[in-house]
Amino acid sequence: MVVITNYFLEHPREHIQLPFFVELCNTTKSSISEDLDIIDAVFQKQGCGYLHRTTGAGGGVKFIPVLSDEKSLAFIQSLCRKLEDPERILPGGYLYMSDILGDPGMVRQIGHIFASRFSSLEIDTVVTVATKGIPLAYAVAAYLNVPVVIVRRDPKVTEGPSVSINYVSGSSRKIQTMVLPKRSLQEGSRVCIIDDFMKAGGTIQGMMNLLAEFHAEVQAIGVLAEADDEEDERIVTDYTSLVKITNLDMAKQIIDVQPGNIF
Amino acid sequence: MVVITNYFLEHPREHIQLPFFVELCNTTKSSISEDLDIIDAVFQKQGCGYLHRTTGAGGGVKFIPVLSDEKSLAFIQSLCRKLEDPERILPGGYLYMSDILGDPGMVRQIGHIFASRFSSLEIDTVVTVATKGIPLAYAVAAYLNVPVVIVRRDPKVTEGPSVSINYVSGSSRKIQTMVLPKRSLQEGSRVCIIDDFMKAGGTIQGMMNLLAEFHAEVQAIGVLAEADDEEDERIVTDYTSLVKITNLDMAKQIIDVQPGNIF
Repeated sequence: MVVITNYFLEHPREHIQLPFFVELCNTTKSSISEDLDIIDAVFQKQGCGYLHRTTGAGGGVKFIPVLSDEKSLAFIQSLCRKLEDPERILPGGYLYMSDILGDPGMVRQIGHIFASRFSSLEIDTVVTVATKGIPLAYAVAAYLNVPVVIVRRDPKVTEGPSVSINYVSGSSRKIQTMVLPKRSLQEGSRVCIIDDFMKAGGTIQGMMNLLAEFHAEVQAIGVLAEADDEEDERIVTDYTSLVKITNLDMAKQIIDVQPGNIF
Repeated sequence: MVVITNYFLEHPREHIQLPFFVELCNTTKSSISEDLDIIDAVFQKQGCGYLHRTTGAGGGVKFIPVLSDEKSLAFIQSLCRKLEDPERILPGGYLYMSDILGDPGMVRQIGHIFASRFSSLEIDTVVTVATKGIPLAYAVAAYLNVPVVIVRRDPKVTEGPSVSINYVSGSSRKIQTMVLPKRSLQEGSRVCIIDDFMKAGGTIQGMMNLLAEFHAEVQAIGVLAEADDEEDERIVTDYTSLVKITNLDMAKQIIDVQPGNIF
């Protein structure tokens, strides 16, 4: 049971045929089947996912790591309280979040929540832009069992031929460049965009334009935090946010953070 | 047993007192104790770690995720075969590795191997430099249960006061800048540096100089791949590499990759 649990947790969303476990554990098919029932029940009770079983030829089992709404909401609420510290306020209406983005445990939880929300979508790649969105993108991708592709703002010599676009940053109105190496993303991929922070949405719009060059289909957009002071000017509307900064008063050093549009 | 296994895997190197499990599983201390014996035996047999138990007041148990040498070597050898594809050769003696660094499963394995090697060291932070080392740094940090700090090559407005240094890139001999926000790293931290690729070592030397400004102690340096053609000019000598590019002939499109100095 320990062996199987371990295997599932390290291989989420991987289709596994029962004979694999029979050999791994050196036991019988019916014993494995009983173990799977128990593991499924425990995962569901813990609110961390479930086992999806299929029968017939090629049938098997897959661990779907869906975090319960209850656990997700509790985490998001504790995150809001953490972010409401006035010492986090930075010039330009930004928020210091590097400590949270630097904590592998927090990052993993955030990834689990996004992956749960996007669980029913057909996603084959997670795309993010350097730098802060990278750990979040990997956390989501690990739970979805798909690769990550990183869009850069500066071309590097070490990645071969690239496609680049120019875009207008929504808040600063500056023209910037984004680059993606040609061989890093297959044409027609179904992608999920992940980033740490969204104001007007210029960066995400830029990513969408770049992805259009690869004929990619954007299935979902997830941002950890959104600032709602620029809601009127927002150019990206179909996204999922975990938290929303509803009030940020630099002069009075007041900041309010609420759960985002995920619930 | 499933609950406990799950908890350990999601909380490596976390000190857990037995009453926590007694409550979590709604059972007795002696039953937990038996379960821990079984789990420890399975983890060891699987070569993925062991349970470290301490007795007395404040005693408890900790999951130490040490990958066996056998598993580490098998992974490294398969990685070498993957990297020896001539299509990976890029101008300047670089190697295309974005597909490997974009695969969360591969990245996790690499992190597990470094964390196993550095398991006995006292490390309280993993430091890397943007961009490619970031996923590896998070994977190592997750197994070591410590935070990640990211050094940037460009200062950002969103992180507050920073310390910056200039350094000479070993291979290109250009002067570059590195920046670390002041509040991201405590003075006197004991750190482990992780990066994806090392040629002469200028970038890592730059990180060491920047970390010296924070009075940090560098306990270990881990690089995924090293190029040994510049061994004479190497300015960093005390490091651990997983693979070594021993021969790269652009004209003949030949590339040889061997296990690094980790074994």
